[in-house]
Amino acid sequence: MFRYLTAGESHGPQLTAIIEGLPAGTRLAADGIDRDLARRQQGYGRGDRMKIETDTVAILSGVRWGETLGSPVTLVVRNRDWENWQEKMSPLAAHRQEGGAVTRPRPGHADLTGALKYGHDDVRNILERSSARETAVRVAVGAVAKALLREFGVTVGGFVTEVGGIAAHQPERPFEELWSIAAQSELFCCDREAELEMKRLIDFSQADGDTLGGVVEVQVIGVPPGLGSHVQWDRKLDARLAMALMSVQAIKGVEVGIGFDAARRPGSRVHDELFRDEGRLGQGAATAYYRQTNRAGGIEGGMSNGEVIVLRAAMKPIPTLYKPLRSVDMQTHEPYEAAVERSDTCAVPAALVVAEAVVAIEIANAFLEKFGGDSVAEIRRNYEGYRTQVRNA
Amino acid sequence: MFRYLTAGESHGPQLTAIIEGLPAGTRLAADGIDRDLARRQQGYGRGDRMKIETDTVAILSGVRWGETLGSPVTLVVRNRDWENWQEKMSPLAAHRQEGGAVTRPRPGHADLTGALKYGHDDVRNILERSSARETAVRVAVGAVAKALLREFGVTVGGFVTEVGGIAAHQPERPFEELWSIAAQSELFCCDREAELEMKRLIDFSQADGDTLGGVVEVQVIGVPPGLGSHVQWDRKLDARLAMALMSVQAIKGVEVGIGFDAARRPGSRVHDELFRDEGRLGQGAATAYYRQTNRAGGIEGGMSNGEVIVLRAAMKPIPTLYKPLRSVDMQTHEPYEAAVERSDTCAVPAALVVAEAVVAIEIANAFLEKFGGDSVAEIRRNYEGYRTQVRNA
Amino acid sequence: MFRYLTAGESHGPQLTAIIEGLPAGTRLAADGIDRDLARRQQGYGRGDRMKIETDTVAILSGVRWGETLGSPVTLVVRNRDWENWQEKMSPLAAHRQEGGAVTRPRPGHADLTGALKYGHDDVRNILERSSARETAVRVAVGAVAKALLREFGVTVGGFVTEVGGIAAHQPERPFEELWSIAAQSELFCCDREAELEMKRLIDFSQADGDTLGGVVEVQVIGVPPGLGSHVQWDRKLDARLAMALMSVQAIKGVEVGIGFDAARRPGSRVHDELFRDEGRLGQGAATAYYRQTNRAGGIEGGMSNGEVIVLRAAMKPIPTLYKPLRSVDMQTHEPYEAAVERSDTCAVPAALVVAEAVVAIEIANAFLEKFGGDSVAEIRRNYEGYRTQVRNA
Amino acid sequence: MFRYLTAGESHGPQLTAIIEGLPAGTRLAADGIDRDLARRQQGYGRGDRMKIETDTVAILSGVRWGETLGSPVTLVVRNRDWENWQEKMSPLAAHRQEGGAVTRPRPGHADLTGALKYGHDDVRNILERSSARETAVRVAVGAVAKALLREFGVTVGGFVTEVGGIAAHQPERPFEELWSIAAQSELFCCDREAELEMKRLIDFSQADGDTLGGVVEVQVIGVPPGLGSHVQWDRKLDARLAMALMSVQAIKGVEVGIGFDAARRPGSRVHDELFRDEGRLGQGAATAYYRQTNRAGGIEGGMSNGEVIVLRAAMKPIPTLYKPLRSVDMQTHEPYEAAVERSDTCAVPAALVVAEAVVAIEIANAFLEKFGGDSVAEIRRNYEGYRTQVRNA
Repeated sequence: MFRYLTAGESHGPQLTAIIEGLPAGTRLAADGIDRDLARRQQGYGRGDRMKIETDTVAILSGVRWGETLGSPVTLVVRNRDWENWQEKMSPLAAHRQEGGAVTRPRPGHADLTGALKYGHDDVRNILERSSARETAVRVAVGAVAKALLREFGVTVGGFVTEVGGIAAHQPERPFEELWSIAAQSELFCCDREAELEMKRLIDFSQADGDTLGGVVEVQVIGVPPGLGSHVQWDRKLDARLAMALMSVQAIKGVEVGIGFDAARRPGSRVHDELFRDEGRLGQGAATAYYRQTNRAGGIEGGMSNGEVIVLRAAMKPIPTLYKPLRSVDMQTHEPYEAAVERSDTCAVPAALVVAEAVVAIEIANAFLEKFGGDSVAEIRRNYEGYRTQVRNA
Repeated sequence: MFRYLTAGESHGPQLTAIIEGLPAGTRLAADGIDRDLARRQQGYGRGDRMKIETDTVAILSGVRWGETLGSPVTLVVRNRDWENWQEKMSPLAAHRQEGGAVTRPRPGHADLTGALKYGHDDVRNILERSSARETAVRVAVGAVAKALLREFGVTVGGFVTEVGGIAAHQPERPFEELWSIAAQSELFCCDREAELEMKRLIDFSQADGDTLGGVVEVQVIGVPPGLGSHVQWDRKLDARLAMALMSVQAIKGVEVGIGFDAARRPGSRVHDELFRDEGRLGQGAATAYYRQTNRAGGIEGGMSNGEVIVLRAAMKPIPTLYKPLRSVDMQTHEPYEAAVERSDTCAVPAALVVAEAVVAIEIANAFLEKFGGDSVAEIRRNYEGYRTQVRNA
Repeated sequence: MFRYLTAGESHGPQLTAIIEGLPAGTRLAADGIDRDLARRQQGYGRGDRMKIETDTVAILSGVRWGETLGSPVTLVVRNRDWENWQEKMSPLAAHRQEGGAVTRPRPGHADLTGALKYGHDDVRNILERSSARETAVRVAVGAVAKALLREFGVTVGGFVTEVGGIAAHQPERPFEELWSIAAQSELFCCDREAELEMKRLIDFSQADGDTLGGVVEVQVIGVPPGLGSHVQWDRKLDARLAMALMSVQAIKGVEVGIGFDAARRPGSRVHDELFRDEGRLGQGAATAYYRQTNRAGGIEGGMSNGEVIVLRAAMKPIPTLYKPLRSVDMQTHEPYEAAVERSDTCAVPAALVVAEAVVAIEIANAFLEKFGGDSVAEIRRNYEGYRTQVRNA
Repeated sequence: MFRYLTAGESHGPQLTAIIEGLPAGTRLAADGIDRDLARRQQGYGRGDRMKIETDTVAILSGVRWGETLGSPVTLVVRNRDWENWQEKMSPLAAHRQEGGAVTRPRPGHADLTGALKYGHDDVRNILERSSARETAVRVAVGAVAKALLREFGVTVGGFVTEVGGIAAHQPERPFEELWSIAAQSELFCCDREAELEMKRLIDFSQADGDTLGGVVEVQVIGVPPGLGSHVQWDRKLDARLAMALMSVQAIKGVEVGIGFDAARRPGSRVHDELFRDEGRLGQGAATAYYRQTNRAGGIEGGMSNGEVIVLRAAMKPIPTLYKPLRSVDMQTHEPYEAAVERSDTCAVPAALVVAEAVVAIEIANAFLEKFGGDSVAEIRRNYEGYRTQVRNA
């Protein structure tokens, strides 16, 4: 079981994650993780804060000489600005300051509800943890999951498909190629024309003091049929993936395959017909069975079906706008216009990287559940045995 | 913690659920549960099977003299057709029959993948459990969750908003009224005109041998601010609700609030501004804070914010069509055209009832987590204390 | 993952269990389960109730034609006396009776605390669930776990080692032989002389109105090295086994291997030295490594080490005595002398059967975690691969 | 829910723990935690390593200005000797060294089994994590649990009751006094005479190259009746406590109350009779009900009953002896005599501190489950409400 907890406040000394359940023998290096951390910080439409920060990970347990040991992995992403926050965010009672509390909850954030729930007077005690900053360390966890999956030929990637209502056209090419194209794009988008339009909209929104959301699509290639299970509600792979994606800050919708569009078409144009071609086995396919379409997005009956897994998530616009939103001060109970604390206009590309991460984690979890094992060598043996079983079916 | 497991095959003797973690003192009667079981079997577009079955629940533990005891509750929904399946689905080795295996996996079902994963030659061993029949007992579990929530003034309802691409217009009325309107409709729809059009489309699809999906919307009224938490990914209320909804057979997309539409609007038209009016407290509101809009769908930062929780789920069309889909026999490896085993054209109204159930379960779970307690009296006391705390904030 | 929930009151219509996570292809028959149910009801020192009841199990899901399907298994043990309790334990509000509440909590039971915790006026609402009657269905769950383990050559058995302070001498013979000897004994004991003495003590206690506890020892043979893990506190096999054993009604102590005695010896007489003999591989041993002693009881570092797993559990005497214990009526607050509701003098043999069951469940759980897989065939392949890996180490 | 994961190798840069589920408003300071870290390092019979190390904790998230925020708490205990191990335990592939692998598994450790399970050639990859060094950070987690419990008047303490078979006599005094006496003792023992004898035995064992185990007893004072539950096997408080204690390195036996002794006495001398005295309420008792004896150790029916919780754990002697144990080299397959890597003779006092920690964690967990709530203020309100309920029963 791949389980993990994250910890850390936005302006605390560091973000920390502990991952439990990794097998021994996974090749893992900090710079592989750092690549995803850097991707998360890119993207057209980010404010200045992103530019000064360059996140890097430190691996503080569970890895020795480039390979996992089987023991828990500790990942740390340090806050480069910590020295400016040492007293404000200090654990020491002696550092308590009167005054300076944040009392103005921002619409669209956890601020008001968090303060009510936890009984805090200082909204900072909520916003420090609810911030999307936490996703940095989740991206690191996801990079570890990707490293594990890579040992078994499973790869995770994606691209941005919409920004502010502008939809990209998806070229008919293998996903790996699309990932390369997207990697060249400042908006992780595969459609250069749409990208230009998106950028114009971002520029306009920025000038207008507004913000933009969008839609990201994640694909997982090389997943064998049979991860997840139909037998109990909480073992369904799509259910777990939906949970993972919806747990990402600012995500408001999740789709598998053609998603909501499936609700609008007749059944004859939704379900993927089944075919068989023994020749595919020679080309590395897991089974001779295949589908010519993949509207299901690689999951049927709560299980991966061997096709590419395709997921989409809708991100709402960043809730902190220059153009102010009305709110109420929790101390004075007076109305005010909500302050801007950060200045991104569009963080959809970052959301893609986070979405990839949480998807990779769930796939890794389901993979380990299906194949058991404590070392990559053992899992590979189990996996190969299953591949043979399935090839012969 | 409200946890549950379901068990049972579609043509086995019964479906069973065990619910663990219910407090003592919840008023619970079988006929309250049966109402939701009956609702699940209604709806324009169902085939004949639904009409002969009339599901009822038996409560076999955890309830005494109309109240829960605090011990696990066992719910059973018997299969009225069991006598015709006694040997085919018998647990006894002596009843094994040669021949008669289902070897033809249906597209859009768990059939092929399930058979590969579990190593079954007889696809019946998969389809019996993956069938949407299982949702009958989940509806029963959901009815128990509703009964618990009712003790605290929390109610769950909903309606169908789309069938086969035809969208209903949602009148501007309180949700309770809309629920009443929907209850009168054969499609659980609040828009009579759209309903007529939907029915015509269903008739046409049926004649055409095709099937239809749709979209359902569930609302939860009376949820206090602060269920779920922003502090860890797996405690976010929206994440758990997304998991619950996506775990329902045939669901391919989930939205909270305006969902995907949030990705298409500027931030200034997405986030719900905050206001305060002490006068609301006299009218039973949980806090003086309020929003004039509810695009967030009642959840911000992974927590209920005190507004109505609004969720939407997209159901794909039933994958068993008269108009056949191409598939492959797993024994002969020959292509064939997929057989029809049941004959519903549209099961979207049933999906609404199931969606309500799984939403109620997660809200109940989050409610118990927040307020602790082992009896309704204790939880009520804790809940009232929190209400006072929040009123005064 | 082998997870399960049980439900049911002592005098309710039935006990129910749902087991989730069983692989497909486990051979399973009700009469195999019934054998353990019958064993649980035997034993010198039981009262009359045990004699009239003959528990049998019904398998109501997850098994077809003698094999598990991979879907959840429902087990039911019906209450043969239900017709006499139908109204007293009815779920219907209409059956509520004034008067007749149990208001006298028995010392040594859950009665008083349960009533305080759940806010019940009628102690029956607690005692019905806290009763050791629940262990009947846990024994059934354990029998399923044993059936799974048997597919992999793992067997679970045990014997009674103490009753009321009289210790049995353990002959130096293979455990399988000891199990056979114990099976012939009315006290599941391997020492005929001690058994005679124990029976005399039971007779004396019965005459004296007193009750007796004892110690049971469970062994698991054929467990490969490497179940459980040292890497995280909650994955340690001994920790999980201790939880399982301590969760059995009336158990107050648990030991692994020589247990408390290990605390009293010098290290040089506690730790099991390691040896190697390639010849053992030809005789079916999992590895060439072995130990000449097994004071560790087959678990080191939170993992099975390949030796026989040996566990001991201490059962307190039955708390319902003819010789009355002082207590207080919860309604009148008057002292009284606690009533006898059942009449066993000694239930240690039954505790052995329950202990075997919960141990089998945890071993099965750890086995599935280690080897993954969804069918017995797949698990066997994974297991054989691991055996080869370990043989060659 | 108080859940936690620990991570870190014995000679890695640090041990890390993340605690999830702490309410806001718990007063918490590093020096409070450090006190228990220091206690863990004390005790007659420790080798030199313990003397140079002085563990201190750093709190890196979840606490601000002396109070918990409700967000996850990160605890770090740094390895003061890390600079000497930087390359040997480096995460970098570039630091891999040929040669230097540990190939000699020590009897009584995880070494051999761990290497087989995880497929490691270098036993260091196991022993670094299985080492009792990990308990340092568990003690830190336990100190946080104690801080939470202290807010509600619940205190955890204990003493050593046996070393190497020498049993201490327990004076008849309140436990708080005994804790003070034990705190003065180099063996955390309340019996000066026995302590002298234990020290002599330790000196003798050290001279003889042998090691010693012992028994520790932990008490929890101020626990209200009703933590845990009888309704499901995995909710029983004694089961969870047994798991927690057995998960501690080197523990081989666990008892609740009089434990194994309960199996040896007649029922009339085991069960604690119930009494009632309204006068007790004026003195701060939770209920008017009480027992004159506490053989049950404060837990009946899987629930705390309001009496002091009393638990005992048996620790085996340290498995690394000067007096060598026979073993086998995993590379050469040649026998050898097991090397000494550390040099404690007796670590029973340290085990007491760890046992207190894991007990505090489980009690805190059960407390939060019973009373819900997100802030100390809210939990206190819920708790007081329950106390009133129980007083009036």
